Amino acid sequence: MTSEQDLREDLATCTRIFAMQGMIGVFGHVSVYQPERRTVLITPGMGSNKGSLQAKDMVATDLDGKPHRGTEGPPVEWPIHTALHRARSDALAVAHLHTPYATLFSIAKRKFKPVTLQGAIFSDGVPLYPQAQLITNPDRGKALLKSIGDKRAVLLRGHGIVVVGQTLQEVLFSSLVLEDDAKKTLQAATLGAVGTISPEECKTFGAEIALERRAQRAWNYFCSLEARWDKQASTGRSALFP
Amino acid sequence: MTSEQDLREDLATCTRIFAMQGMIGVFGHVSVYQPERRTVLITPGMGSNKGSLQAKDMVATDLDGKPHRGTEGPPVEWPIHTALHRARSDALAVAHLHTPYATLFSIAKRKFKPVTLQGAIFSDGVPLYPQAQLITNPDRGKALLKSIGDKRAVLLRGHGIVVVGQTLQEVLFSSLVLEDDAKKTLQAATLGAVGTISPEECKTFGAEIALERRAQRAWNYFCSLEARWDKQASTGRSALFP
Amino acid sequence: MTSEQDLREDLATCTRIFAMQGMIGVFGHVSVYQPERRTVLITPGMGSNKGSLQAKDMVATDLDGKPHRGTEGPPVEWPIHTALHRARSDALAVAHLHTPYATLFSIAKRKFKPVTLQGAIFSDGVPLYPQAQLITNPDRGKALLKSIGDKRAVLLRGHGIVVVGQTLQEVLFSSLVLEDDAKKTLQAATLGAVGTISPEECKTFGAEIALERRAQRAWNYFCSLEARWDKQASTGRSALFP
Amino acid sequence: MTSEQDLREDLATCTRIFAMQGMIGVFGHVSVYQPERRTVLITPGMGSNKGSLQAKDMVATDLDGKPHRGTEGPPVEWPIHTALHRARSDALAVAHLHTPYATLFSIAKRKFKPVTLQGAIFSDGVPLYPQAQLITNPDRGKALLKSIGDKRAVLLRGHGIVVVGQTLQEVLFSSLVLEDDAKKTLQAATLGAVGTISPEECKTFGAEIALERRAQRAWNYFCSLEARWDKQASTGRSALFP
Repeated sequence: MTSEQDLREDLATCTRIFAMQGMIGVFGHVSVYQPERRTVLITPGMGSNKGSLQAKDMVATDLDGKPHRGTEGPPVEWPIHTALHRARSDALAVAHLHTPYATLFSIAKRKFKPVTLQGAIFSDGVPLYPQAQLITNPDRGKALLKSIGDKRAVLLRGHGIVVVGQTLQEVLFSSLVLEDDAKKTLQAATLGAVGTISPEECKTFGAEIALERRAQRAWNYFCSLEARWDKQASTGRSALFP
Repeated sequence: MTSEQDLREDLATCTRIFAMQGMIGVFGHVSVYQPERRTVLITPGMGSNKGSLQAKDMVATDLDGKPHRGTEGPPVEWPIHTALHRARSDALAVAHLHTPYATLFSIAKRKFKPVTLQGAIFSDGVPLYPQAQLITNPDRGKALLKSIGDKRAVLLRGHGIVVVGQTLQEVLFSSLVLEDDAKKTLQAATLGAVGTISPEECKTFGAEIALERRAQRAWNYFCSLEARWDKQASTGRSALFP
Repeated sequence: MTSEQDLREDLATCTRIFAMQGMIGVFGHVSVYQPERRTVLITPGMGSNKGSLQAKDMVATDLDGKPHRGTEGPPVEWPIHTALHRARSDALAVAHLHTPYATLFSIAKRKFKPVTLQGAIFSDGVPLYPQAQLITNPDRGKALLKSIGDKRAVLLRGHGIVVVGQTLQEVLFSSLVLEDDAKKTLQAATLGAVGTISPEECKTFGAEIALERRAQRAWNYFCSLEARWDKQASTGRSALFP
Repeated sequence: MTSEQDLREDLATCTRIFAMQGMIGVFGHVSVYQPERRTVLITPGMGSNKGSLQAKDMVATDLDGKPHRGTEGPPVEWPIHTALHRARSDALAVAHLHTPYATLFSIAKRKFKPVTLQGAIFSDGVPLYPQAQLITNPDRGKALLKSIGDKRAVLLRGHGIVVVGQTLQEVLFSSLVLEDDAKKTLQAATLGAVGTISPEECKTFGAEIALERRAQRAWNYFCSLEARWDKQASTGRSALFP
């Protein structure tokens, strides 16, 4: 079992990468759950600069959002994380992101469908949580579970996205894929009708097969970029809700 | 009451953040008013680099645009600021910005409506000042008051935007929200019909409730980014009228 | 009369600013003409990095493109410059640019019309040179004169733009305005019908009146940015034909 | 005949330039073939950071993808390269790229046609490889040959592009042109109908005539930029599949 310290390091790294990529803004958060310890590790709330987070900044809570020590609690939308960690054994890592492109599918009346081969991991699409509200209590967490079902991701209307995975590596990779496919859909749409990868083609392609290996390689690549990153979000500019 | 020096510092900081974000260009200006002192503090005119402004560069005038000392006057569009400061007690801070996205709603024939939860602070929309002219005299300032009514912001046709608030923190936050919602509307529109957050949903969401707290946190975040900013607008490039 | 050395300095500075802004690429060129000396100063051809040009790199030619000294000739499209310098006394400065947005109007079947108040200097629109060819001989230069007429700028089909002015300052300012209006038109178009500033409104606005002053201020601003520029076109990336 | 070491240097440089330009991502690869030595030099697979590659990192294989020494093999899509090197004497250099704009033509249902004068080298268009699959075996390599025919480039559905040329210089230049024309098509389309350069106009323009010279100049220009590049893909951010 990964030590809590190692998991804290990975969680901080993952979050800094999301910050470097402009995908988390000041309102997003990421968590990872260890069932053996019944411990949720989650990034701190809005006051924090996601691009500078360190392992020691991670907040440890139980599945009811109660902090293990001290008085600092998790972000107000902690029920997003605890609901998913509790209900789905394949959701040991959960990211709530504000991304520039995937979020647009929570605004435009258009269903997300994969348009690249890598996007085949979203062959079943990405459902929508339709309420115009933050997920700030367990009831809304339960409603979110109904929306997401057994999918990898869910769109929060006029708000952002949630992506789940078995590891932080998988969540990072899946989020990057979702964002890239969302961006390409938007841009291709200005050229004309958009060709999607059908569920049958997705199945044949078998994107799930080597997912862990691809996710690990992407993780290594972005870790090396982040290690040299100057922490200046796109050279100064930063979107409030990217 | 905040000291004039502290207010000058905040005004310079707020303006540098707008410059860092590419939202003010060479023609925008920001002001703050203290009724107790009947003093308007305003950024200097077009000759100045907004990304480098310091507290000492702020121009102090009365409500008729007359400088308190010296010969340097305020920017030629000072009536935007004095009209609003005089007429509305909730407009102690006023920003005239040239932003890349919100300005497009002063060009395209489409009404602005919020598309994100944060955008709910603009539930009543953003009206348009329809004349193709600069606001360079008190009569035009009065016409601007009619256009904006009791709203948070107004679009200036083919020109830019004006955002008001009780504090510079609120004006910064509101401007960032308006710009983000404008950007997302533009981008979502290429995907299909755009879903907006209805006035009823805005009301239920209650974006106004914790506005001061959220604005302060965003202020702190952007202050920390600006403190490390290299003053090179997006690495050299700068839009004349962003 | 400005000394040749000072003019060389200004020409090099103007060109570096265009490079910083991503508006000239590897194929553009800028010239300035002194009738008293019958001397055209022009930036060197494609082999040169426009962001690093110095006064000594400028090529001096006569109105037939013949270099004053040495063997290095002007860029192959020198007839753009000599045709305009010879024919129009208000075209003492000429820029042939490859800009990201204005160039699109040489591709899309849509006439350019101003959409901002500053754009009023282009109230008469921007005509098109319709041939799909480079302007590499005097006959094509004459055809270009017919296309541009007495306007400030002309679009070269599938290629780029040409902007003229009485000074380099005016050419820089006009080019920035044209590019900004082109960009805003493109972006506003995704929101719906685009509102333009009518010729009557342009006339009433009087954008020409203080043009020299505004152009000088913009020049000063961009000179100060360029002086601190790291010469890394948008941090490394560079468009071949921006 | 160029020495293998020099060719390795050029291949590494070319690949770093593609990385600087954001055109190769973590999944692209570039190769060059010397028939005299029956040796393919190719960039290593996904685990590598394309922006940091050096001559020594290049993998040498035969035309069946078998490495000359050691155990490290070529990227899994090596049949793209060997199929083209074997079959076409004008395909001594081959790049498989993931580019932000040209790739969109593998998604949108719209044929690529040149829209600029430089784009005339693609007067015959760019065909599509229609299968939603990676090119991981010789049979798919043969199918790719059928799709590309005698053209300079081919689009891989929902995936990326392949560009061939007689030299790495030509492949770099052609790829930049294709990407620029794709970008301009996308952007011009938001303005209205897009004017293309007809095959007759392309022929008259004669873009092929001085292609080698232009390619060499562009190569020199981008080499000088790359030499000063900080290796931080667009200041930190990096697209997984640009």
